[in-house]
Amino acid sequence: MKERGIGSEKIIRRKGDGELEYRPDDLTVEEPLEIRVGRKVLATTMRTPGHDDELAVGFLVSEAIVRNREEVAQIVKNDDNTVDVELAPGVKLKLNSAQRFGTISSSCGICGKTSIEAIRQNFPAIESTNARIDVQTLLSLPALLQKHQNDFGRTGGIHAAGLFEVDGELRIVREDIGRHNAVDKAIGRPFLDGLLPLDRHLLLVSGRASFEILQKALAAGIPIVAAVSAPSTLAVSFARESNQTLIGFLRPPSFNVYSHVERVVMEER
Amino acid sequence: MKERGIGSEKIIRRKGDGELEYRPDDLTVEEPLEIRVGRKVLATTMRTPGHDDELAVGFLVSEAIVRNREEVAQIVKNDDNTVDVELAPGVKLKLNSAQRFGTISSSCGICGKTSIEAIRQNFPAIESTNARIDVQTLLSLPALLQKHQNDFGRTGGIHAAGLFEVDGELRIVREDIGRHNAVDKAIGRPFLDGLLPLDRHLLLVSGRASFEILQKALAAGIPIVAAVSAPSTLAVSFARESNQTLIGFLRPPSFNVYSHVERVVMEER
Repeated sequence: MKERGIGSEKIIRRKGDGELEYRPDDLTVEEPLEIRVGRKVLATTMRTPGHDDELAVGFLVSEAIVRNREEVAQIVKNDDNTVDVELAPGVKLKLNSAQRFGTISSSCGICGKTSIEAIRQNFPAIESTNARIDVQTLLSLPALLQKHQNDFGRTGGIHAAGLFEVDGELRIVREDIGRHNAVDKAIGRPFLDGLLPLDRHLLLVSGRASFEILQKALAAGIPIVAAVSAPSTLAVSFARESNQTLIGFLRPPSFNVYSHVERVVMEER
Repeated sequence: MKERGIGSEKIIRRKGDGELEYRPDDLTVEEPLEIRVGRKVLATTMRTPGHDDELAVGFLVSEAIVRNREEVAQIVKNDDNTVDVELAPGVKLKLNSAQRFGTISSSCGICGKTSIEAIRQNFPAIESTNARIDVQTLLSLPALLQKHQNDFGRTGGIHAAGLFEVDGELRIVREDIGRHNAVDKAIGRPFLDGLLPLDRHLLLVSGRASFEILQKALAAGIPIVAAVSAPSTLAVSFARESNQTLIGFLRPPSFNVYSHVERVVMEER
């Protein structure tokens, strides 16, 4: 059975020895999804199909449009790559004047706002929590993430986001051609289950950590973000201001801590 | 001297042996750039500073707003992360109704449009050209790209785009935290030099090939696109329709060809 997120194409492969091979190749599917609230098209995102309901509400959480499960009455996924979110009676769709969304490419998370100021949502910083993770637990996470990825990984064109409890227990893994979509899905699921804020949790992303990843984590109340690859300057300054712990280059046995190291319990030496 | 694209932060590194080290770390800079045409803010993109004039006009080419050098009268980079493009007298800024831009994250290239239809610009397919590349030349390109990257590479958080002639000569390398920005810069430079269409050229990107990369290449008339990593399904179908040769996983000595293999001259065996 074919997974929704993988497409197959006939390709020509030049092998290492120079031999040519005609064979089918698995590719990550990239298709648009129109996210609508009421009858208003809020955004169109280039995504890998699957878990579209999670993606839609995760996006709404990231954009500060909804905060609690009770604010969403219904989510309907239609056949034509559209999803309709109906807000609960009495909940109004309030967009600030600068908050216009549009089409979002497969790697975009903060599109559609027309001024620099509007890029930042005004989420409060993480309150001092007791969330701590010890080094050995932290070092175990990349292998756990990889183990729970689908065969998707073989296409080489997919980003993964994993949500863990600080004791190392894996809660959810989501994959998508867009890094922001993977994160939206990973926070959309616990949102639907009424579990926000995720204040005892760590978000692990398979690639880089840009500013938008930190902002999405903050929207869900996540105090610790780890990335397998590098963070940007803006991600670091955002994490420091938001009281988030940011870990980069998490490649056991080593890693970097860019902010709020107090949540990482180092071994005694 | 510090490069504009790199920032330094004090970090804590856990080394492989468990030892902790406090040291400065180089990070890729991520900052917003507001692209304005006339007095209208057209888009805000999260980019790595440097070559902002190229980025601005490359974006305008990709979005089918300008096509010829003569259509741009002046480009002014201001100190506040904004750039003003002035169109030539008589050239009007025509946006179709769906073409509203907004903030573009560090990996986004097609933001700000409110319908699925509007994602695709209507560039004509590549006309049958005589552009051909032979296998050994093709296999030499990744090393050339890497050699001409700045020390940027050491931050691990940067995308590179290289423009080559089909005989293997390197024309330009540009780097950015956003893959789309790197491509916009790489086509913006030759646009400013009056060299479009780039019909004897190949575009090589250091990462994946999404649909938007192919569309940007098409906007500049580039017949061959190669990526070090995987393409998406939509990139493949777009390349086939646009008469573009798409090469993926270009990792010498092997690679995949996804479309229009006739431009790749294989060795005789």
